[in-house]
Amino acid sequence: MTRADLTERILEAKRRQDLSFGEIASRIGRDRVWLTAALLGQHPLDREAARAVLELLGLGSADEEALLTEVPTRGSGVQAVPTDPTLYRLYEVLGVYGPALKALIHEEFGDGIMSAIAFNLALERREDPDGDRVRITLDGKFLPYKW
Amino acid sequence: MTRADLTERILEAKRRQDLSFGEIASRIGRDRVWLTAALLGQHPLDREAARAVLELLGLGSADEEALLTEVPTRGSGVQAVPTDPTLYRLYEVLGVYGPALKALIHEEFGDGIMSAIAFNLALERREDPDGDRVRITLDGKFLPYKW
Amino acid sequence: MTRADLTERILEAKRRQDLSFGEIASRIGRDRVWLTAALLGQHPLDREAARAVLELLGLGSADEEALLTEVPTRGSGVQAVPTDPTLYRLYEVLGVYGPALKALIHEEFGDGIMSAIAFNLALERREDPDGDRVRITLDGKFLPYKW
Amino acid sequence: MTRADLTERILEAKRRQDLSFGEIASRIGRDRVWLTAALLGQHPLDREAARAVLELLGLGSADEEALLTEVPTRGSGVQAVPTDPTLYRLYEVLGVYGPALKALIHEEFGDGIMSAIAFNLALERREDPDGDRVRITLDGKFLPYKW
Amino acid sequence: MTRADLTERILEAKRRQDLSFGEIASRIGRDRVWLTAALLGQHPLDREAARAVLELLGLGSADEEALLTEVPTRGSGVQAVPTDPTLYRLYEVLGVYGPALKALIHEEFGDGIMSAIAFNLALERREDPDGDRVRITLDGKFLPYKW
Amino acid sequence: MTRADLTERILEAKRRQDLSFGEIASRIGRDRVWLTAALLGQHPLDREAARAVLELLGLGSADEEALLTEVPTRGSGVQAVPTDPTLYRLYEVLGVYGPALKALIHEEFGDGIMSAIAFNLALERREDPDGDRVRITLDGKFLPYKW
Amino acid sequence: MTRADLTERILEAKRRQDLSFGEIASRIGRDRVWLTAALLGQHPLDREAARAVLELLGLGSADEEALLTEVPTRGSGVQAVPTDPTLYRLYEVLGVYGPALKALIHEEFGDGIMSAIAFNLALERREDPDGDRVRITLDGKFLPYKW
Amino acid sequence: MTRADLTERILEAKRRQDLSFGEIASRIGRDRVWLTAALLGQHPLDREAARAVLELLGLGSADEEALLTEVPTRGSGVQAVPTDPTLYRLYEVLGVYGPALKALIHEEFGDGIMSAIAFNLALERREDPDGDRVRITLDGKFLPYKW
Amino acid sequence: MTRADLTERILEAKRRQDLSFGEIASRIGRDRVWLTAALLGQHPLDREAARAVLELLGLGSADEEALLTEVPTRGSGVQAVPTDPTLYRLYEVLGVYGPALKALIHEEFGDGIMSAIAFNLALERREDPDGDRVRITLDGKFLPYKW
Amino acid sequence: MTRADLTERILEAKRRQDLSFGEIASRIGRDRVWLTAALLGQHPLDREAARAVLELLGLGSADEEALLTEVPTRGSGVQAVPTDPTLYRLYEVLGVYGPALKALIHEEFGDGIMSAIAFNLALERREDPDGDRVRITLDGKFLPYKW
Repeated sequence: MTRADLTERILEAKRRQDLSFGEIASRIGRDRVWLTAALLGQHPLDREAARAVLELLGLGSADEEALLTEVPTRGSGVQAVPTDPTLYRLYEVLGVYGPALKALIHEEFGDGIMSAIAFNLALERREDPDGDRVRITLDGKFLPYKW
Repeated sequence: MTRADLTERILEAKRRQDLSFGEIASRIGRDRVWLTAALLGQHPLDREAARAVLELLGLGSADEEALLTEVPTRGSGVQAVPTDPTLYRLYEVLGVYGPALKALIHEEFGDGIMSAIAFNLALERREDPDGDRVRITLDGKFLPYKW
Repeated sequence: MTRADLTERILEAKRRQDLSFGEIASRIGRDRVWLTAALLGQHPLDREAARAVLELLGLGSADEEALLTEVPTRGSGVQAVPTDPTLYRLYEVLGVYGPALKALIHEEFGDGIMSAIAFNLALERREDPDGDRVRITLDGKFLPYKW
Repeated sequence: MTRADLTERILEAKRRQDLSFGEIASRIGRDRVWLTAALLGQHPLDREAARAVLELLGLGSADEEALLTEVPTRGSGVQAVPTDPTLYRLYEVLGVYGPALKALIHEEFGDGIMSAIAFNLALERREDPDGDRVRITLDGKFLPYKW
Repeated sequence: MTRADLTERILEAKRRQDLSFGEIASRIGRDRVWLTAALLGQHPLDREAARAVLELLGLGSADEEALLTEVPTRGSGVQAVPTDPTLYRLYEVLGVYGPALKALIHEEFGDGIMSAIAFNLALERREDPDGDRVRITLDGKFLPYKW
Repeated sequence: MTRADLTERILEAKRRQDLSFGEIASRIGRDRVWLTAALLGQHPLDREAARAVLELLGLGSADEEALLTEVPTRGSGVQAVPTDPTLYRLYEVLGVYGPALKALIHEEFGDGIMSAIAFNLALERREDPDGDRVRITLDGKFLPYKW
Repeated sequence: MTRADLTERILEAKRRQDLSFGEIASRIGRDRVWLTAALLGQHPLDREAARAVLELLGLGSADEEALLTEVPTRGSGVQAVPTDPTLYRLYEVLGVYGPALKALIHEEFGDGIMSAIAFNLALERREDPDGDRVRITLDGKFLPYKW
Repeated sequence: MTRADLTERILEAKRRQDLSFGEIASRIGRDRVWLTAALLGQHPLDREAARAVLELLGLGSADEEALLTEVPTRGSGVQAVPTDPTLYRLYEVLGVYGPALKALIHEEFGDGIMSAIAFNLALERREDPDGDRVRITLDGKFLPYKW
Repeated sequence: MTRADLTERILEAKRRQDLSFGEIASRIGRDRVWLTAALLGQHPLDREAARAVLELLGLGSADEEALLTEVPTRGSGVQAVPTDPTLYRLYEVLGVYGPALKALIHEEFGDGIMSAIAFNLALERREDPDGDRVRITLDGKFLPYKW
Repeated sequence: MTRADLTERILEAKRRQDLSFGEIASRIGRDRVWLTAALLGQHPLDREAARAVLELLGLGSADEEALLTEVPTRGSGVQAVPTDPTLYRLYEVLGVYGPALKALIHEEFGDGIMSAIAFNLALERREDPDGDRVRITLDGKFLPYKW
């Protein structure tokens, strides 16, 4: 059993239990975006969360629990340029606005990066008379280049 | 003269005038992120903005103005997978959190996408005792799949 | 079972029942192009359509039904440049006429795109003494760039 | 001077004369989509059209005219997967609906292709209270596989 | 069972029966090149040929027969640049002589293509005292660009 | 001056002299396909032919002559998968019929290849009431694998 | 069973035994970095080490032992550009500092390389009040170009 | 003038002055590895260092100084997989030992990365009777994943 | 069973019998390099050799024997740029010395190639006080370009 | 002037002087293969050889001499998979025989590589009644993996 096999198993159990990621996150008391990413194979879960999730999903062998708490190889199995339209729009934003964001980060903070490790992400629905909007907030620590 | 040539000319003039993108944006009264992207060749400027920018930079032939108001071929000249660390972190976020964002957009809104066209983007510095943070907000209209 | 597995299962059942996509679509009362794309793994079906299709095909486990109603990861499993001649001609049209279409969309509507989300597609046979013709109509909402 | 050089020269002259592709096409009496593609380097012009276009644009050396009437190497200089959002949406349609179109062409006509050679294309603005729509019609001769 | 699975099954049966493609073609009375391509998954067989081939090979479930008569997705599973030396030489010919063939097709026929659909192919052994030669004849209808 | 520069210069002179490749070949008494390929940078010319061609085209510096007689780096500057439709159809033939040709070469000759070096190529127009046809004949020595 | 299958089996046994690579290395008395690389399929183990590891992990068929002592095909299964952030940072260092390291190796030693074969690697934790640091030391024999 | 142009100009001046990177670094009092990377276009120089370097090299227009102090787009112009043997060996180390380093970083520190930003690098010659050795030390802050 | 499956089976049997390729070659009286390549799926074996090898390895179904005598699709399953260091060095030689070899083959023989079909290869250990050397000799017939 | 510019300049001078690489090598007393590779930009020349070559070619600025003695970035400008048939055959040999060579190097020497640094290469014409043969000898020191 690889982590990819386990992800598939989790998705099947979630479908069978008819649970949303939001519901799983609120039941075990973790952040929704973080937990979704973790269950999709991008973060390790601590032992307590692993147990709670597996139990909720009706899974839970020792192997599954151990595997779920291991640091995964992130980003494997994701397309370099995503074909799915929902994912592609995020990639497109990077192409159109990436160089502008780089220029402005340097104007605002100097030479460095927005950390993707000391980092969190939120997704919100914002009501709007012209059609509701998706608001995604990336929030990362600025790390200055430091020799 | 192509749009890429013009972008290079603009960057050289900006360097010579020792102006930041933020200063240019506030002088001509446009959004900072939007204008930076436009000057980097990703959006057309309306005639008024084009004139104001070119004058500010000490440029301004009729050709440059006309070219600056044309809809550009976006994203050309950008690497599919960026090598620059500041840009790469944004790409990495997409790899680690993209599938989670897709899943949660569908849970929250149903089948559809966050528009990258009816869309805006903000960059902010958030002070933090553990080190200041970069906050990037993507805000796009939700577009449901509709046959 | 992944969505790709389910697509294969659907194609095998369709072959066994000797049904065309057109017949399936007319039996369950949905648009032919839309339903074909959906059964090939590109759209979720609503629960009612999912049940009707699965019954017609002699399938229908709870798992299959649940999977068929989930938003899929679109475009996965499709070649970036298709090798099949029937598909390739559509890709070739994009290479030969794409930049012209972009230029004319901007002349006609200003800066923006033809939505691929608020979008539909029709395929028609047009009789012609020189040989019948395939007519494909792409019809999408124009979305202006709007900050 | 290569054909790509000539295309750039034509675009610069067109910008200077402040002419749209639609205006050029109606002045010299040719189809708008076809002529735009031709001026962007995808079709040869017959001698008469070449002369008319070059004169209209204030160009017209013997070399330019000769080059404009030569069959070009089509599709060179176009990205395999376009990054420009207006172009990308057309490519996305191919990914989402391509296999469905293939299946339905075969159901409707048997084994074969829609020709991209005996082919024409129209672009139209369709008014709609929910927002005007872009309608693109691909019309190609069906060619059956024939040994 | 996909078409690729069926191709593998056919090759195993052919090996077991110790039949060449040439023998199969002559037994069921079809062109040798065409039938070989079809059995390798590149063309559908009509029902009669499908039955004859499957019987000859000692196969023949209803599923196999139905699958063999479906229009396949051509070219899938073939390398973009072939590594096999026998295949590579054909690809190399394209690199060395392709642009010359294009130029001469246009000189001889005007703007257009050699159809790969209204097309046939022959392979012949030509005796030669300096070593026998392979002669491959591509014969396709000329299709003029026609708007 | 590289060989690619020289090819461009030759094409410009040919355009100016309004000569076809066929005319050049017959004037200097060489095979039309071979000479076209050579002038497009794929073969060296012997000194006599180089002189004759350059004179005919109104070129002829010592450098040009020397460069034209050097063995070129073949295939550079050609796309791995051609986008031009006239070229692409030849590539498509390779995808659809390549494996069949390989199988039949082995049935007919045993293990080995059709040489692309001891090789010639002819292009012919064949009249046909259903539309004239392009006939391309590849004729190469069979080379058996021989340790 | 391929070496990749064996690696997966080893990782599952290690998870079940709840052993770290460091523990395995110290139990069988080998270098930690070297052994981890070997167990991940990048080096052969000598027979003694193979036996000790397999026993420790509760594995140990004759096939597994033989396979573990064979020289593997290194680097297969690793992404050309790694997506995992922990791996990517190492790749990024190569992009940012690679050319500088090359220049300085040549200044220091003359023309040649740092061997990756007569080579070892150490990983160390260095305590630091500003946050502990990872120290990785690459130590390879200098090999001068020598004809 | 782009940053790549400036790098080329710096290398030409360095060659003309017959200076090594080590000499430049010691003359202006900066770290040798850092400065070499900076002069090769991977880091901005502060104004003082920029002036000192340019003066030392006999360069020094205002444009050059301004460009040298701008944050560059890092890693552009570097091959994804380097072909130069001196560089390739570093890439090879990543392929052979990367996954082992990842595993041991996680064993030693938990989930996180070695920063490539709060990072420094040293290159040293270590004498050895069997042939001198290159020792490269990567020293980066450990950054734990922290939501 | 495909040829790749058979190769894996042969490698497993060889491991179990603890035989080297050299031993197998000398037992059945064939060239060592040629046979190793053949057993790794790159050449067909004649019936006699196939039987001898399979018997020696304790294999030998009729299917295996038939498959082993078929001309394989060469080079499939090999990486375009090999990651294994032992293989990569051979590829590196091609990058560093390839253009020189091409130039010298043309100086020595005129326009043409070294055949890779009428070709053999030897590997030898040459003792050397500074460390033994690997000597690989490529020996192929020169084939002049001949129309 | 980059090293690539210099290579082009050298080739033009060589053409004008009508010198072969073999003649240049024998005039300045260096190995023919090594010098050809060096002049094609793959090795630095020592000062004496650089002077001799430049004088022989009628070149010789101080810049050219300095550049010619610098360690170049090897392999840049060479195609990953060569399209030239003379080069491709060498690449093909790698695909067909590479894995066999790896297996036999390990049988003969144990785990390690043939060095491409402590390495030389010879090219020879071997007369043969069936057609002369090209013999290429790769001779490299065996380097055992050594931690």
